[in-house]
Amino acid sequence: MNKNKNFTPDWTDKPPKPGTARSIFKWGAPDGFKHPNHRLYEAIKEKFGMDDGDFRKKIYEGNEPVSCSTGIRLETRQIERFKEIVGPDNVSVSDYDRVRYSTGKTMEEAMKLRQGVAVEVNDLVVHPRSKTDIQMIVSFCNQEKIPVYVYGGGSSVTKGLQCIKGGVTLVMSTHMNRVLSFNETNQTITVESGIMGPAYESILNNAPEKLDAEYRYTGGHFPQSFQYSSVGGWIVTLGSGQASSYYGDMYDIVLSQEYITPTGDFRTLDFPGTATGPKVNDIMKGSEGTFGVLVNATLKIFKYRPENRRRFTFIFPTWEAAVDASREIIQGEFGKPAVFRISDPEETDLALKMYGIEGTPISRLISYKGYRPMRRCLCIGTAEGEKNFTKNVKKQIKKICRKYGAMYLSGYPVKNWEHGRYLDPYIREDLNDFGIISDTLETGVTWDNLHRLHQSVREYIKKRPRTVCMTHASHFYPQGTNLYFIFIARMNNIDEYLEFQEGIIDQIEKNGGSLSHHHGVGKMIGPWMERHIGTKQMNILKALKKHFDPNNIMNPGGTLGIDIEIR
Amino acid sequence: MNKNKNFTPDWTDKPPKPGTARSIFKWGAPDGFKHPNHRLYEAIKEKFGMDDGDFRKKIYEGNEPVSCSTGIRLETRQIERFKEIVGPDNVSVSDYDRVRYSTGKTMEEAMKLRQGVAVEVNDLVVHPRSKTDIQMIVSFCNQEKIPVYVYGGGSSVTKGLQCIKGGVTLVMSTHMNRVLSFNETNQTITVESGIMGPAYESILNNAPEKLDAEYRYTGGHFPQSFQYSSVGGWIVTLGSGQASSYYGDMYDIVLSQEYITPTGDFRTLDFPGTATGPKVNDIMKGSEGTFGVLVNATLKIFKYRPENRRRFTFIFPTWEAAVDASREIIQGEFGKPAVFRISDPEETDLALKMYGIEGTPISRLISYKGYRPMRRCLCIGTAEGEKNFTKNVKKQIKKICRKYGAMYLSGYPVKNWEHGRYLDPYIREDLNDFGIISDTLETGVTWDNLHRLHQSVREYIKKRPRTVCMTHASHFYPQGTNLYFIFIARMNNIDEYLEFQEGIIDQIEKNGGSLSHHHGVGKMIGPWMERHIGTKQMNILKALKKHFDPNNIMNPGGTLGIDIEIR
Repeated sequence: MNKNKNFTPDWTDKPPKPGTARSIFKWGAPDGFKHPNHRLYEAIKEKFGMDDGDFRKKIYEGNEPVSCSTGIRLETRQIERFKEIVGPDNVSVSDYDRVRYSTGKTMEEAMKLRQGVAVEVNDLVVHPRSKTDIQMIVSFCNQEKIPVYVYGGGSSVTKGLQCIKGGVTLVMSTHMNRVLSFNETNQTITVESGIMGPAYESILNNAPEKLDAEYRYTGGHFPQSFQYSSVGGWIVTLGSGQASSYYGDMYDIVLSQEYITPTGDFRTLDFPGTATGPKVNDIMKGSEGTFGVLVNATLKIFKYRPENRRRFTFIFPTWEAAVDASREIIQGEFGKPAVFRISDPEETDLALKMYGIEGTPISRLISYKGYRPMRRCLCIGTAEGEKNFTKNVKKQIKKICRKYGAMYLSGYPVKNWEHGRYLDPYIREDLNDFGIISDTLETGVTWDNLHRLHQSVREYIKKRPRTVCMTHASHFYPQGTNLYFIFIARMNNIDEYLEFQEGIIDQIEKNGGSLSHHHGVGKMIGPWMERHIGTKQMNILKALKKHFDPNNIMNPGGTLGIDIEIR
Repeated sequence: MNKNKNFTPDWTDKPPKPGTARSIFKWGAPDGFKHPNHRLYEAIKEKFGMDDGDFRKKIYEGNEPVSCSTGIRLETRQIERFKEIVGPDNVSVSDYDRVRYSTGKTMEEAMKLRQGVAVEVNDLVVHPRSKTDIQMIVSFCNQEKIPVYVYGGGSSVTKGLQCIKGGVTLVMSTHMNRVLSFNETNQTITVESGIMGPAYESILNNAPEKLDAEYRYTGGHFPQSFQYSSVGGWIVTLGSGQASSYYGDMYDIVLSQEYITPTGDFRTLDFPGTATGPKVNDIMKGSEGTFGVLVNATLKIFKYRPENRRRFTFIFPTWEAAVDASREIIQGEFGKPAVFRISDPEETDLALKMYGIEGTPISRLISYKGYRPMRRCLCIGTAEGEKNFTKNVKKQIKKICRKYGAMYLSGYPVKNWEHGRYLDPYIREDLNDFGIISDTLETGVTWDNLHRLHQSVREYIKKRPRTVCMTHASHFYPQGTNLYFIFIARMNNIDEYLEFQEGIIDQIEKNGGSLSHHHGVGKMIGPWMERHIGTKQMNILKALKKHFDPNNIMNPGGTLGIDIEIR
């Protein structure tokens, strides 16, 4: 089949033209790319029964200019009022902006944009400059019953940004991205919600120079979307970073927040420990814009000491061994690893190709030692913190991994992974160009249910012929972990795709997984929420919704399933 | 003044007679006592300007039988219905039971009981046997608008148990104290809410024998009230144990809960990590019986390895040095100490007497080395967890303490403290017998506000002549800690006492402390809540209250300030 050994597909490596659909669905930087390497390309062809010929012509590239068939449903006087509030330069009614700021990064949105299928758009894009702007906007919108959507970094993979009911989208990252205060004594920083990951982390890493601090700090939060997501987005969707096993989920990191809601504004108190009734700070976390607009937050920060970081890679004989070792590690009370990730056999198989291990002496040694393909499992991780602490964490992890039959493969593959950790999402657009979808769904799970959930979801995905299903666990707690499913298939039909995705969510829900571990719910998973948490608990969320937003103007249209209707 | 060196007051050391007021306000076991030792007694006389003569006659001992002047406000058919639900043996209308189960352990309640002043009582005491009993009770009470109060271990120091509106008190600890399930894989245990501290901890410590487990476990929660408080009480009042710096506050330890509310019953999901909207599990924590009845909870448990525990004691030259060292320790990222406590100079002075250090060679060495009375500060603590971990925690703590001028005093005083840690509350009844009140108020605080808060509250307390004010911090977070004020004074007048207490709470609130770090709010601190969290945030709690309990039958009468009125 592969007659021309030197053939390489013409992966797109020019930035998309401004104004095109591609410039919206493309991941990250316009000039950012990561193409499948040769081994991965060969594997793809084999898995999907494709040959070089299938990679000669791209389909649905989305190079056409975006247009929007939905008329603007706001009155002229309303648009004028928004211009008065934020200034005319901070308001846009262009088709491109309306579509761009109504779109996240789901596979569905990318497929639709590529094929020119309409997405549900806002009527107006507004870039607020300050808390006062937002107060006036929310007040005006509440009075006029205009829906309000909030856009941070735009990386939502749950249709969190879709403007089902039209209205305005507030883009937080344009102006609302400042550091408001820094408190080294308390180890906290207060930032506006629109500040993006790299800017936030860079200020902390360079605290002595930028904040006149004694030490360097880290936010400890590194989601896959780090470069293109905002602190506010992390909070309202309950994100987790790749080092969450040590630093905690975003839920744990937020000390206090300020919200503007239709029924009033407030800032929660910032006591690290207090016994004064249900914690409003926590009630607001995960509200995904349905209660109000998060304008700023005070976050816990940590000492930045990369010189103490220890890295480790292991290969386990089986998935069961990797899971058992992980559980013993996280329940071991010797301190927790920062990054910790175990890949199931199918993910391991691809990871060895992707991260350049296959074909090296390490790879040969692994096979020689009897770690068999499609049974062996890769584990990578780091320890962070004080020097002796990280040394002991690594030592204990080694001890436990060996007990479960794992072989230590040095820290080198982790350095490799760190280097390219934010680039993997770029691969998706290359695959999509040739009719291969690649998407993810993820879930939280208790230890005792991990294997059942993993097997059931895999079974469902693998029932579809020639479909890849890679799974890893990457956020660890003494009581459980997460499962992250990556599924890849040759598929062009949007409806077929949606039916397949729905089936996977069904399997997760039926087999006792949470509906999401760290992507949030958005409008995509909203329909499952009431069955998942039960009507009684959904009614609690609805009571809060009614309190904050009696006119249902905040992110309406099914977010969290809180105002669900037939769509 | 002290002519007779051998005089010892006739401290009460007989159990109070059944049926007496004393049997209610007395701490702990009827035959449990801890009398002031000789050094403490001498210090007390000196501080309060008293002599042996003042300790010859006890006042207001509360040895009279309890009677209750408040008539029963329930109808006979209502009482009959309760008997039908739980069986006649589990219902009581006796004066003694009505008073006993309406009373907690505040100084105010003890003073009132001693002086025969009426407290606000329920009409009926009910001992539910099961979740079904409670479902029927709450449903009936909601229908008939009968107030429902919940009694766990009875150790509330916030008037959490007072039955302002009459009605029924449900005593949870009588029957609802079973282990429902144990999951060693997930490291969780599910217990009914009425299980008491020692029973809970003992089952976990003896898990191999009692639960057929592989390992021994600990709950990690050891409040001062440990022996006389229930798991449910710990949760609904947001308690913290003495080892919370390592194990977390009760808030952190609860994985899921089941509630019965007037508008329905539900059990929250038990995922350790999930991004599915605001967490109902957390919304319920700290609700202090105002939303519904907590019937059971699933808690995180930890490996029990007392053999790895390391103990340490230090003496610091000043309070400032002790605070700075503590902050550096808790922000040090080498793992956290379990018990950690620093005492201010006045507490240190009394602690050295109370814990038998004064007069020993250690005491002479401290003075010789220049640690001056009323400047020096005591620090005690432990490290728990894996062996190398605890070794390193202690090593790093030593390094930091020395940097701040502290001297290491071995682990011995901690062993002493551990041995008697639950006995100190018994001292209060001895002091009270001779007209000396002893009470506590506590608060959460950020690091940058610690000294201001400490000084302002101390100043207020010390403005009153001959009044002791001892302070310690004992629950540590990278962002702050708590301050625990113990005030002791010669005082018999209840109104004078209440005015004094109100003044202290005012000072805490005005100087930026939280209204409570781990005692909860109850009805005592309720009046400050709205000013403290702000009307907007109080309205959120009120919206939840209205949702769960539209007829305001659950712990009504000012709890959390949620239904506050002029009283």
